[in-house]
Amino acid sequence: MSSTKWLNEVVWDEQGLVPAIAQDAETGEVLMFAWMNREALALTAERGEAVYWSRSRRKLWHKGEESGHTQKVREIRMDCDGDVILLRIEQVGGIACHTGRRSCFFNRHVAQGGWEAVDPVIKDPADIYTRKQS
Amino acid sequence: MSSTKWLNEVVWDEQGLVPAIAQDAETGEVLMFAWMNREALALTAERGEAVYWSRSRRKLWHKGEESGHTQKVREIRMDCDGDVILLRIEQVGGIACHTGRRSCFFNRHVAQGGWEAVDPVIKDPADIYTRKQS
Repeated sequence: MSSTKWLNEVVWDEQGLVPAIAQDAETGEVLMFAWMNREALALTAERGEAVYWSRSRRKLWHKGEESGHTQKVREIRMDCDGDVILLRIEQVGGIACHTGRRSCFFNRHVAQGGWEAVDPVIKDPADIYTRKQS
Repeated sequence: MSSTKWLNEVVWDEQGLVPAIAQDAETGEVLMFAWMNREALALTAERGEAVYWSRSRRKLWHKGEESGHTQKVREIRMDCDGDVILLRIEQVGGIACHTGRRSCFFNRHVAQGGWEAVDPVIKDPADIYTRKQS
């Protein structure tokens, strides 16, 4: 029965979305970046698990619904302008990225002028996404 | 004389921008969120200091140009989809936010359904932005 007034303080963009950053609450690692609409943010707060808006699929996306790699929300933060959300989370299964890596930010810019994948794949994506919904 | 091929691997949005997250390289704190165009990212890599694209002012924004609070870039990362940049930085002056706080993400969602500014103002913004350009 909590008020939804706090949702009105978020500055939604012209598509009704805000960027959302997911950060490991313990280690500080930035794990992923996604988008939220009003309903996604409300559900995230209500359930205590990250729910995003998938721009490609145009639907709500309960992170981990297929992989089991849900994100337990420890804290929801908003920036000074009210137009970016930061979730401090516990990453279930230790894998946030669909490539099977811990973080989506595994490409490092190298001096020679390229990108290098510097973080290991923890689990083969083929093994992650064959998981049956329980 | 480094190649700019790596810039072509970034998936720029329809406005030619990518979201950029600035994270303290030592502590892992997420300090701010901004946008970059191709030139901003190229300059960031070249100078080793964060340069963003200001959407409101529609111009390049060398972070700290007024405040002195520049961001020394330790590492540039890109996510799995190539459409988000993560800068791991050293925050000169220890203040990233225009409100005089360390991080822009100082508003915490509280159980009662509101936002609470939980981090201290380190320096009065009036004292930050009167600084003369040297």
